[in-house]
Amino acid sequence: MQRLFLPIAPPDAGFHRRALDRQAQLTKPPGSLGMLENLAVRLAAMQRRDDPRLERIHISIFAADHGIAAEGVSAFPQAVTTEMVKNFAAGGAAANVLARRIDARFEVVDVGLLNPVELPGVISQRAGAGTENFKIGQAMTSAQLDIALRAGMAAVDRALAGRADIFIGGEMGIANTCSASAVAAALLALPAEDITGAGTGLNREQILHKAAVIRQALHRHRQQLTAPLAVLQRLGGFEIAALAGAYIGAAQQALPVLVDGFISSVAALVAVGINPDCQAWFFFGHRSGEKGHGRVLDALAAEPILQLGMRLGEASGALMAVPVLQTACLLHNEMATFAQARVSAGL
Amino acid sequence: MQRLFLPIAPPDAGFHRRALDRQAQLTKPPGSLGMLENLAVRLAAMQRRDDPRLERIHISIFAADHGIAAEGVSAFPQAVTTEMVKNFAAGGAAANVLARRIDARFEVVDVGLLNPVELPGVISQRAGAGTENFKIGQAMTSAQLDIALRAGMAAVDRALAGRADIFIGGEMGIANTCSASAVAAALLALPAEDITGAGTGLNREQILHKAAVIRQALHRHRQQLTAPLAVLQRLGGFEIAALAGAYIGAAQQALPVLVDGFISSVAALVAVGINPDCQAWFFFGHRSGEKGHGRVLDALAAEPILQLGMRLGEASGALMAVPVLQTACLLHNEMATFAQARVSAGL
Repeated sequence: MQRLFLPIAPPDAGFHRRALDRQAQLTKPPGSLGMLENLAVRLAAMQRRDDPRLERIHISIFAADHGIAAEGVSAFPQAVTTEMVKNFAAGGAAANVLARRIDARFEVVDVGLLNPVELPGVISQRAGAGTENFKIGQAMTSAQLDIALRAGMAAVDRALAGRADIFIGGEMGIANTCSASAVAAALLALPAEDITGAGTGLNREQILHKAAVIRQALHRHRQQLTAPLAVLQRLGGFEIAALAGAYIGAAQQALPVLVDGFISSVAALVAVGINPDCQAWFFFGHRSGEKGHGRVLDALAAEPILQLGMRLGEASGALMAVPVLQTACLLHNEMATFAQARVSAGL
Repeated sequence: MQRLFLPIAPPDAGFHRRALDRQAQLTKPPGSLGMLENLAVRLAAMQRRDDPRLERIHISIFAADHGIAAEGVSAFPQAVTTEMVKNFAAGGAAANVLARRIDARFEVVDVGLLNPVELPGVISQRAGAGTENFKIGQAMTSAQLDIALRAGMAAVDRALAGRADIFIGGEMGIANTCSASAVAAALLALPAEDITGAGTGLNREQILHKAAVIRQALHRHRQQLTAPLAVLQRLGGFEIAALAGAYIGAAQQALPVLVDGFISSVAALVAVGINPDCQAWFFFGHRSGEKGHGRVLDALAAEPILQLGMRLGEASGALMAVPVLQTACLLHNEMATFAQARVSAGL
């Protein structure tokens, strides 16, 4: 898909510099707001505003099923993907509670449930009825990959139509840590064991089995894992492809992105592999408890805002980080300067 | 002061157990909300509520000056303590921005400014015009210590009169990381070098000088540093004593406490040294960038909610953590259970 490779402009250097200057004038020791200073400065540069803000938050949760679930790699039955989509539609999931708390616009996109459902708030842009089992064959066809990538870009277009200040993607898909771990192992050239974790709650033995499944899949596809899009098609999931498409689409349209946890970070890794300039538009919300996340974050040189030991997905880590970003903006915009407050600067 | 040693009841075990049961029923893999689960469960036990909440937030910022500032241990001139109190009164400091954001009740308590000011929102309960230089003599008399401890307890009484759901203490006092580092070194039997950091922004050489000042003070007072209250009197600050008094007073009255960064954690260490049962009522908001904080947190077996690289004081780290605690409550109270949402539980 040609659109993926269209150029991405960097955030504005002039606004970046002005925001840094302002931080140095605020009534606090230089650097004493830690990460909050950089968050506000980066957002000012992205938004081309001296007063960065996060008022309108757009959340798209991409849901899809995974053929690899047949290998017994999840602690939950596959039916839970669709059951949780119903829970989203009814407003009872963690993501709903978190979205209401920050008054966000919340949508669910079915990019490939095994059992599709028609429910208010659930958009259907399906690439298939779940992926194929990637231990046996490729997860999806190139046509399916194209549909999933476009579903992500379409979500960004809706976010922009709603004048969103930031885009948050989330995912739901039983067995998708297995797919994400396989994609990350392929892209980072790591052994499966180094990146395979407990997902929704596997025990030690089950994790070893999951790693063995990934190792066999990596071996089967080894000749074809030559580029990020090929890795995505062979080992990925529809929701992971949608997230990658969304991240690139957002960056191309200068919309800041707040990346969630492990699965989303793997999608970000794919996106950066396809079009490296997108990374300048990413914030990372949360360092997950899932084993492989640290390796993926290191590869992206990413420092997540929070580390709360969460490992839920559903955009939950990103949603927790929104108030931190919002507060970083408020401090940047509302604190008095040394001159205004007549406070002596440092010696 | 006898009141410090009055007994402290633990949070309610029954509500704790019921809250744990509820967490296991919510539509998420067990443990997948990480630290948020424990925060909600602990708060339920403290508040004796099945639906824990943080609606009314009380913040007291204790401000005082330090005689040890004469030794050149801060990057800012001593006048900044009073200047920042004026900034608080005018609403321009980081703490003001953060307090407005969470709609908190905000007060400043002058427990010993060198240059007192009469301003709206500033309560005067002064133990003196700054402490004495503790390199030369004791920081305060026992009568002054008593006044400062009572000032903290009085703040808690105001919080309770306002039906606060949580108490947050903060501090402002040029050179108070020097005092706090000395107190922590004495209580933890650590060399000054191991706990002395940059404070508001000292360079490496200045940090060595600050550590040397602390080392000399520890040596001078070594015979008298026999108990937490003696350490506080010899090496402490009025605002550190006020915080310690407030923490004990809050725990005695079953009011949860959200501890801020390095200085506040040292006050918490003093409080736990005086009356160990108070610790069950503490949350820790933020792991500071200040060097000694890790050692103090380890001694308290404390795991702060956030780690944003902040090192400002003024309750700023605690204030950043309030939305996390509030969201932990919302998730606990509002998420659907597996039964309600008809979602299959784990295999």
